[in-house]
Amino acid sequence: MTRFFVDPDQLQLDFLVLTGENAAHAKVLRLKIGDEVIVCDGSGNECLCTISDISADKISLVVNSRSNATSEAQVNVSIYIAFSKGDKLEHVIQKATELGAYEIVAFPCSRCVSRPDEKSLHKKLERWQKIAESAAKQSGRGRIPQILTVDSYQKALDRAAIADIPILFYENEQATTLRMVLSSKPYKTVSLLTGPEGGLEPREVEQAKNTGFQICTLGRRILRCETAPLCALSAVMYDSGEF
Amino acid sequence: MTRFFVDPDQLQLDFLVLTGENAAHAKVLRLKIGDEVIVCDGSGNECLCTISDISADKISLVVNSRSNATSEAQVNVSIYIAFSKGDKLEHVIQKATELGAYEIVAFPCSRCVSRPDEKSLHKKLERWQKIAESAAKQSGRGRIPQILTVDSYQKALDRAAIADIPILFYENEQATTLRMVLSSKPYKTVSLLTGPEGGLEPREVEQAKNTGFQICTLGRRILRCETAPLCALSAVMYDSGEF
Repeated sequence: MTRFFVDPDQLQLDFLVLTGENAAHAKVLRLKIGDEVIVCDGSGNECLCTISDISADKISLVVNSRSNATSEAQVNVSIYIAFSKGDKLEHVIQKATELGAYEIVAFPCSRCVSRPDEKSLHKKLERWQKIAESAAKQSGRGRIPQILTVDSYQKALDRAAIADIPILFYENEQATTLRMVLSSKPYKTVSLLTGPEGGLEPREVEQAKNTGFQICTLGRRILRCETAPLCALSAVMYDSGEF
Repeated sequence: MTRFFVDPDQLQLDFLVLTGENAAHAKVLRLKIGDEVIVCDGSGNECLCTISDISADKISLVVNSRSNATSEAQVNVSIYIAFSKGDKLEHVIQKATELGAYEIVAFPCSRCVSRPDEKSLHKKLERWQKIAESAAKQSGRGRIPQILTVDSYQKALDRAAIADIPILFYENEQATTLRMVLSSKPYKTVSLLTGPEGGLEPREVEQAKNTGFQICTLGRRILRCETAPLCALSAVMYDSGEF
């Protein structure tokens, strides 16, 4: 069923009106009076609605029922990914949203070859948030993951370390597996941190250890920087009983 | 360490010579005498070698030691993916190779919107195999997954059903999880089958059930056709103890 995201205060009413981009999107989809759609506030609340009227620039809806989004994961997984070249971040944002990530945080580190400047960052964040919104719609999520950036590696570590289990994946770690770490205690929140194209520096891995991170392997194959977070996220979702 | 793939009979000698594309690639990487490289036969055998000489169009190597590739997964996972639009298949081939897939088989089905004709198929297969080879090198694998196509859906089912556990992922399945199926018996070989953009038809899911498949959910979010196989592969690798 088609999903539309609106502001939370709009979702309180019994009759909703879609305007602007939402109305334009409904036209593209050729929705008609009587069709059912889902309207979400992007934070986990949603309504099942029926289209009651369609005019030039707005779509009127009657709310049939309300619910908490049932497609959200039981565990909040935060993805911490180093700034990287080209469209890799966009790829990770799209796929991690589909896979159920709670939020995605991009951070700088020593071997990052690409790092947006202050000026372009604002535009990029807007674009990234749009990608997350579109992937959330398409995958039937009731919540749009927030896309954030932090301006230092230590800030990323400090923020990530608040989770029940903060994990850094490192290609030189062989002994500690994700399974060992996830089975060590019950968890409701997990942070998954992965490095840039050239990997993290040994001292950065030490720094994470000192901030409370578990250092894990993702297996004996070297994964690209855009593959590693999605592999880890899939495994955590599996481990926490999502599928 | 840089990896080169050669024919299996070449790997029997104590002194190896890299020519053609391999030699050209070594030049691009500016390898020099004394550098160590790994030479593999693409089927799981590999040699650690030292460069002893570099001339215009060949690189001479001395074999230091031989081993079975240690980066191969303990479980053979075959990916069965429906023909799909654009570069989605290429994406899945690259990522599934990194993640350790044993082989990747593309098949036609009712809602496939794109299906290569006989003429273009040969060229595409060649291209897909190149993508797998390059991803195998980059991720440090000792084996290049074979990329195959079959010309009917039933042929894909019959081939996949030989595995210890053949699984089809279906968005309308809610009760049976991947975890239930993987914990039902020990496994050495798994087939993971996913549908095209528009999904599989209910009768195609029935057909798979009749061929011995387990029908599973991948969670409450709808995954794109290129995300689903990689999510499932990551979970099977995790379940089988790879990381």
